[in-house]
Amino acid sequence: MRNLNEDTITQAVLARHADMSDERLQEIMTSLVRHLHDFAREVRLTEQEWEQGIKFLTETGHTCSDKRQEFILLSDTLGLSTLVTAQNNRKPDGCTEATVFGPFHVENSPEHALGDDIANGARGEPCFVRGMVRDILGKPVPHAMMEVWQADEDGFYDVQYPELDALQGRATLHADADGTFHFRSIVANPYPIPHDGPVGRMLAALGRHPWRPAHLHFLIKAEGYETLITHVFRDGDPYLDSDAVFGVRSTLVADWVRHEPGIAPDGTQMKVPFYTLDYDFVLNPVSSER
Amino acid sequence: MRNLNEDTITQAVLARHADMSDERLQEIMTSLVRHLHDFAREVRLTEQEWEQGIKFLTETGHTCSDKRQEFILLSDTLGLSTLVTAQNNRKPDGCTEATVFGPFHVENSPEHALGDDIANGARGEPCFVRGMVRDILGKPVPHAMMEVWQADEDGFYDVQYPELDALQGRATLHADADGTFHFRSIVANPYPIPHDGPVGRMLAALGRHPWRPAHLHFLIKAEGYETLITHVFRDGDPYLDSDAVFGVRSTLVADWVRHEPGIAPDGTQMKVPFYTLDYDFVLNPVSSER
Repeated sequence: MRNLNEDTITQAVLARHADMSDERLQEIMTSLVRHLHDFAREVRLTEQEWEQGIKFLTETGHTCSDKRQEFILLSDTLGLSTLVTAQNNRKPDGCTEATVFGPFHVENSPEHALGDDIANGARGEPCFVRGMVRDILGKPVPHAMMEVWQADEDGFYDVQYPELDALQGRATLHADADGTFHFRSIVANPYPIPHDGPVGRMLAALGRHPWRPAHLHFLIKAEGYETLITHVFRDGDPYLDSDAVFGVRSTLVADWVRHEPGIAPDGTQMKVPFYTLDYDFVLNPVSSER
Repeated sequence: MRNLNEDTITQAVLARHADMSDERLQEIMTSLVRHLHDFAREVRLTEQEWEQGIKFLTETGHTCSDKRQEFILLSDTLGLSTLVTAQNNRKPDGCTEATVFGPFHVENSPEHALGDDIANGARGEPCFVRGMVRDILGKPVPHAMMEVWQADEDGFYDVQYPELDALQGRATLHADADGTFHFRSIVANPYPIPHDGPVGRMLAALGRHPWRPAHLHFLIKAEGYETLITHVFRDGDPYLDSDAVFGVRSTLVADWVRHEPGIAPDGTQMKVPFYTLDYDFVLNPVSSER
């Protein structure tokens, strides 16, 4: 303990954790310390590089606020979020797949009735969304709670506008007794993840673009089923094969259909072109094997 | 790219970095992504644990200020700092060994003349420090620049007192033409690293104490020699074998000798007991093989 070097330090740290009572924490810390040390040895990390790492993490922390989560962006852009999502959400074929949560979810988004326009002032071309929440046998799941959130036509979520006090382009809805849901919103467009901070500088240094393909976020909860956190992606988007956060799954890509001015699905007489999106969600019962 | 799972995600992330021009950055990111992903797969990290990790890193970032560096504490307590220090400071036997930098160094500490009392009001029993900066053959290194910093008798550095505007217990000194130096300060005592933040909570969860054995920090620079960042540790300290940051090296342990009231080495008539510390530093020429 009085003469540790770059090889003996790892065992010395692990020995300090030998008597822990929390076995799961011990398992996690053992693997974390081993991989952290192996990384530093493998690349022969220099003191200057270590300093840059400390500075990067500090700036990433200072960029986090109640409206911005830079560490989630970091996890997303390094593929960790997709890895964790995938290994915790194995489902039988036919169930709607999960994807990354992202940093823009807000607790307690405004309650809306089916049919409402959830854009609430967010700019974009109108879009009418409808579908059904059901189980793998096709049976409707009644009254599922659905949270929806999305960016506007400029690629920004409401929480990214510092001067905006309202919640826009997000809602909590409840599907009907027959599992169906419908609401009005705006068309999803591709957007860059916030790249004016440390993660944006990292992407630039790595020669990577910050863009995500257009998508609509959903979080769906129903008694007896696993909670589903997912996106629906817009077919034809140029970034479907290079999502900055590795979130695309082919089963989640759907067609946003463009319509000339006329009667919308909810009966509204539209004087401008509008879009429709039809998408069903298939939930996995909690009792099923993972 | 549209159907990544927990196994294929790693190659997908690395493929995104394939065309980078900065080869060193690519080497570092490849190893980092591999180890990060291997860690998450190995422990089958859950979504709740991932969330706790994001929260921990965010709180660690928010605890960092211009006076506190919680990420350095994290690196120190996980042994990473000792690893990086060791692999970047291999020296011939006989040279003074390096140890961790710690989070309490301050740029531009006050200039003092040899013989000054650098405590500058910091509380503690008086201590007279003297020694020589030399090379491995015993030849004096003239006029080396030395930064010294230490905690007070309560175990706090000046920067840990929010209300304190002065710099205490730290100085920039210049050794004499014959390599010798001497100054007055206070005795070093053991202290706990700041443990009221996320790293302290981590140590508590791991069943680890936050204490460091008593030590005096030195940063020594001289033309033609490698910069030396090190501590001198106080022999007999109860934490020498369980330093919270794994920084002890047996060659850096020295005797703080206690004296009854009387004449101090600099001729001062002391009415209270005082200590002396004699320690020589041996620098490594920049030209030597690592």
